[in-house]
Amino acid sequence: MTLAPERAAQSGSTTDDANPAVSLSCRHCGATYPLGPQHVCFECFAPLEIAYDEDRLRRVTRASIEAGPQNLWRYVGLLPAGHDPARRVSLGAGFTPLRPAPRLAAELGMKTLWVKDDSANPTHSFKDRVVSVALSAARDLGFTTVACASTGNLAHSVAAHAAHTGLRSIVLVPHDLEDGKTVSTAVYGGTLVAIKGNYDDVNKLCSQLADEYEWAFVNVNVRPFYAEGSKTLGYEVAEQLGWRLPAQVVIPIASGSLLTKVDKAFRELGKLGLVEPTPYKVFGAQAAGCNPVAAAFERGVDTVSPVRPSTIAKSLSIGNPADGPYALDVARRTGGAITDVTDDEIIEGMRLLARTEGIFGETAGGVTVANLRRQLREGLLDPDAETVIYNTGDGLKTLDPLVGIAGPTATIPPTLSAFEAAGLGDD
Amino acid sequence: MTLAPERAAQSGSTTDDANPAVSLSCRHCGATYPLGPQHVCFECFAPLEIAYDEDRLRRVTRASIEAGPQNLWRYVGLLPAGHDPARRVSLGAGFTPLRPAPRLAAELGMKTLWVKDDSANPTHSFKDRVVSVALSAARDLGFTTVACASTGNLAHSVAAHAAHTGLRSIVLVPHDLEDGKTVSTAVYGGTLVAIKGNYDDVNKLCSQLADEYEWAFVNVNVRPFYAEGSKTLGYEVAEQLGWRLPAQVVIPIASGSLLTKVDKAFRELGKLGLVEPTPYKVFGAQAAGCNPVAAAFERGVDTVSPVRPSTIAKSLSIGNPADGPYALDVARRTGGAITDVTDDEIIEGMRLLARTEGIFGETAGGVTVANLRRQLREGLLDPDAETVIYNTGDGLKTLDPLVGIAGPTATIPPTLSAFEAAGLGDD
Repeated sequence: MTLAPERAAQSGSTTDDANPAVSLSCRHCGATYPLGPQHVCFECFAPLEIAYDEDRLRRVTRASIEAGPQNLWRYVGLLPAGHDPARRVSLGAGFTPLRPAPRLAAELGMKTLWVKDDSANPTHSFKDRVVSVALSAARDLGFTTVACASTGNLAHSVAAHAAHTGLRSIVLVPHDLEDGKTVSTAVYGGTLVAIKGNYDDVNKLCSQLADEYEWAFVNVNVRPFYAEGSKTLGYEVAEQLGWRLPAQVVIPIASGSLLTKVDKAFRELGKLGLVEPTPYKVFGAQAAGCNPVAAAFERGVDTVSPVRPSTIAKSLSIGNPADGPYALDVARRTGGAITDVTDDEIIEGMRLLARTEGIFGETAGGVTVANLRRQLREGLLDPDAETVIYNTGDGLKTLDPLVGIAGPTATIPPTLSAFEAAGLGDD
Repeated sequence: MTLAPERAAQSGSTTDDANPAVSLSCRHCGATYPLGPQHVCFECFAPLEIAYDEDRLRRVTRASIEAGPQNLWRYVGLLPAGHDPARRVSLGAGFTPLRPAPRLAAELGMKTLWVKDDSANPTHSFKDRVVSVALSAARDLGFTTVACASTGNLAHSVAAHAAHTGLRSIVLVPHDLEDGKTVSTAVYGGTLVAIKGNYDDVNKLCSQLADEYEWAFVNVNVRPFYAEGSKTLGYEVAEQLGWRLPAQVVIPIASGSLLTKVDKAFRELGKLGLVEPTPYKVFGAQAAGCNPVAAAFERGVDTVSPVRPSTIAKSLSIGNPADGPYALDVARRTGGAITDVTDDEIIEGMRLLARTEGIFGETAGGVTVANLRRQLREGLLDPDAETVIYNTGDGLKTLDPLVGIAGPTATIPPTLSAFEAAGLGDD
């Protein structure tokens, strides 16, 4: 792909001194490439990731972070984009609440449990983090059009951030998406293209378009930048615990990227001396209807065999997860585990979190809570060790599975006697 | 109503020294009553409000506020509940972003415009503020059951906060509520009662129940406490502007309570020396389909004549607004105005806010933006004076009016040639 002149000129700015990112590095063969819109290794076709200058990372201190804004950009010194405030894209994502969950802990027989609640982000999912970083990188690299393929959270977030920034956005989705998801993306006024096909068809078309047009596809050609945004979900938990690592974390797995980036964040913080490098265990959570990584963990193999997703947890429905093998590595290295739960258990998990803590997470949150319960039951997870679970999205976005399940206690005429006859009054 | 012994014992705590609230005072005749679960004057049946000890209010400083938590409880020294942390109810509502809105300002020909974005609250509406204060007061007063009548945002918020706190909740709603609103309340596991009747029937039954049972109805018997929670939307804007008042604010009107409380907050801050008491104008925003206060403003009368609501802005559909006359007073005293807009303009307002700033507000947000535009057009509002508009809820909760309006730009087969043939590529 050829850089337009103004792109080539601006792209140099991503290697300026403020930015700790210095190159793209192949996760398989180690080949390096200059920072740019590239996501696979030209040598071995493995995925690329951002490589940092360690001296630049070391400029970051607890104090410099604490003096930053109350959003993910407080960690800009550990990120590959957003260093020039004029090109930083922000709706204020990040620094979401780390909520103590004593009532859920009591119900599960646990000692200390926290919920990292990313439904508090601007468009109510953790995707706002990766989109903030990806769009900032896109501007650093001189792009003026951003694009993505998505079935929900990512589409919403890209459209919102692009509108906020005045970037042109082109979002591609399957044509049979629910009305609600179409509306909450289209309302921002960007280009929304419905594709007569399934998500795989949409994805394939996006790869073709990325070769054809000079657009930043957030989860294709700028994916190495995009994925780094998830590290902030690790940094924040450590800072919010008073600059220390939790003993156990439970994280939902779609592509597996989030789980590997939280682990990366914890290791970075330890290496940089920002926390004591205490041991921690990383647990992964999948739905039984899309469990390629949990199945590989169970079988004790390194290869993740693709599956055809069929679960209510649509935001986790990636049958061939790019970071699956890396997620397996992390769980095994840290002494964690990766398990799965049925759709019924997912719904029960959503209701349990809502009933005990007043947090209505999306289906992915139900997957996490239900797997937490399973991992406790099977003795994989220690009920006495401090645990953080990640709620990555908002229940308002995935109401459908609960319709007909979470409904009125009673339906009555508008009279006091009917109220009492229904047994609703005090005894 | 007789206080149960444990209630009577605990209720004394609301007059402890930490709490600046000292009594309930009639807004019409000035009669005073001890702090308790009472909302109308026994003498003249006018609504009651909280009266404060001014010396206690004066203990609050900018520094004491700034040292507080990043939520509405930083203003506890100016509120009538939540002084005992053990009885404070909080999901972290408040201190929501005050977003600069340069792209919306440019489109409207304005100089400096801000959006106070209360969709960032835990259940994504400003109701989390009043519910936090009402439930804290309910606990101060010894109640263990909380209740409300609602068609949406309030139901969601009461159910969530009650679940979080372990309070029993009883939420009454009309039986023909949308599935989505039923689910997002029922999921928290409290008692949800569907009433075969309209909202007026539900309300009437709640008044009967409040006489019968020792429950705290957040917007009935503890309404004086509840309403004070809205003051925080005034405090926060002043603090976020660097401890000064904006020149103009635009606020949606349902009962009119929010508008009067923002004005009250601005006056309190001036009186307490926390800001310079600079002049400001308060503008109200209604839907043409439920415009009793705007109609009274237009006619130049003091009496608000009830209407039968018929608008897509359901969260503002109060045909007989309790604080309508007080809202009229505020708009007239400050030199503001109260106007209304059609449903088409509301939808256009929602889309304008989303397209320019990446903020997807609920229909009430569309009402505010559309009235801002009208007030500018009619010369009521000064485009050169600093203006803050209030977005009180989240578009995800009111998707229906946009279905069929905000949709895909194009629907195409999954091929590059179809993409190009549809004119979606670069020129």
